[in-house]
Amino acid sequence: MTSAHDVEKSVLLADIGNTYFHIYNGNEIEHLSYEEAVGKYSKEALCYISVKQQLDSTIENIHLWKNISQQIKLKDAYETMGVDRRALCLSHENGVFVDAGSAITVDIMLDGKYKGGFIVPGLKAMLQAYTAISPVLETELNETISLEQLPTTTKDGISYGIIASIKALIDKHSDGKKLYFTGGDGKLLSSFFEEATYDEMLVFNGMRKALKATSR
Amino acid sequence: MTSAHDVEKSVLLADIGNTYFHIYNGNEIEHLSYEEAVGKYSKEALCYISVKQQLDSTIENIHLWKNISQQIKLKDAYETMGVDRRALCLSHENGVFVDAGSAITVDIMLDGKYKGGFIVPGLKAMLQAYTAISPVLETELNETISLEQLPTTTKDGISYGIIASIKALIDKHSDGKKLYFTGGDGKLLSSFFEEATYDEMLVFNGMRKALKATSR
Repeated sequence: MTSAHDVEKSVLLADIGNTYFHIYNGNEIEHLSYEEAVGKYSKEALCYISVKQQLDSTIENIHLWKNISQQIKLKDAYETMGVDRRALCLSHENGVFVDAGSAITVDIMLDGKYKGGFIVPGLKAMLQAYTAISPVLETELNETISLEQLPTTTKDGISYGIIASIKALIDKHSDGKKLYFTGGDGKLLSSFFEEATYDEMLVFNGMRKALKATSR
Repeated sequence: MTSAHDVEKSVLLADIGNTYFHIYNGNEIEHLSYEEAVGKYSKEALCYISVKQQLDSTIENIHLWKNISQQIKLKDAYETMGVDRRALCLSHENGVFVDAGSAITVDIMLDGKYKGGFIVPGLKAMLQAYTAISPVLETELNETISLEQLPTTTKDGISYGIIASIKALIDKHSDGKKLYFTGGDGKLLSSFFEEATYDEMLVFNGMRKALKATSR
C-alpha cells in the first residue's frame, strides 16, 4: 500500500501556467516549455494542475499524468478562480499571496479561508501595454527604481507607474499580514517590500497539502 | 495691432493626442479624428500642441496652423516630458494632475514648479493587456466596482486591479493637494475619489496661460 508520504515523494508535481510548465521533481523546480515538459516527463507519473484549458486534451492523453485540479479545495474560493491561485493560497493559513507571472494575482487568506483578491497584468504585459499606446512609451523596466522620490524621466515614470501602483495596493491590503511572493517576477517584485518571503515552492506546497488531505 | 486677449479669443486651440485631435473652438471642446480635424479647420487660424511626432509634417503644411509647443514652458520639467502634460501642469500652481487618456499620466505641481510624475497604461490599454495574457482574462470594466471590499470574481478582480492600483498610488501622492482630472476617462476615474475636480479645459487653460505669458 502506498502512503500519502510516498505519493508526495515519488510523484512529480506540475503547475501548468499560461506561458510555462513548472515542474517540481522532488529536488528543484524546472521551468519548461510545453514541448520540453512532454518530451522529458511523459513516461513518468506526474500530478498536475492547469490554467490552460486549450492544452487539456493533449495532456489528458498521457496516461501517467493525473489532473488533480478537482482536489485543490479552497474554502470560500469563487468558482472561476484559477487552480494555481487556489493551490498558492493553500500553502499557508494566513497571508497575502502574490503570484507574479504573466499576470500578477494578489490573494488574501485569513484563518484558512479565502477573503478575495485581485489581478493586474504582469510586468512584461504592462511594458507591452505602454508600447502599444505609443512608440515613445516603449522602454525597459528600471529594476532598481527608487520609490522614495517622484520620477522625472519617461523610463522612470513608467517603471514607477508599474511597480509603485501594484506596491501601493498590496501595502494597503497587507495590514500586518505576512507577504508571500512566487512566480517568475516574484523575486524582483518582492525586493520592493521591506518584509516579504519569496518562495518558488508555494504552489507546490499547496498541491502537496491538498494531496495529503485527500489521501487521508 | 492684435492684443493677447484677442489672440486668445480668436484662435482655435488644439491638443493633438495619440488617438484624438482635441479642439477648443471658444465654446466647446470637440474630439475629432485627424482627418475630421484637418477637413473642418484647415482654413482657420489654430494654435496646437502635439505629442504625435509622426503627424508633424502633414500638419506643418497647413500655413494657418501654428505649433506652440516651444512656448509651453514648465519650470523643472524634464526634457522628454510630453507637451500636453506640461500644458496640463501649467493650469494651476499646485495640485495633482491626472490625464486619463490612452495613457494615464499623473503629475505633481508645487508652487508653480514641476515635482515629477508617473505614467500608467490607460483603462482601455489595461483591459487589452489582460486579454493579451489569456482569453480567460478578457472582460469589460465594471465601472461601478466597489473599492471597499475585496473582489471575489475574475471580472471584479480585474476591474479592482485596474482602478484600485492607480487610485492607491494617486492617494499616496495627494497628501492634501487638490486633485485635477482631465482626458477621455478622467470623469470616470475621478468618480473613485472623494474630492476631485474633472475639467476638460485644463490643458487648454495651460495653453492660454502660456500664450499670454509669451505675448506680454
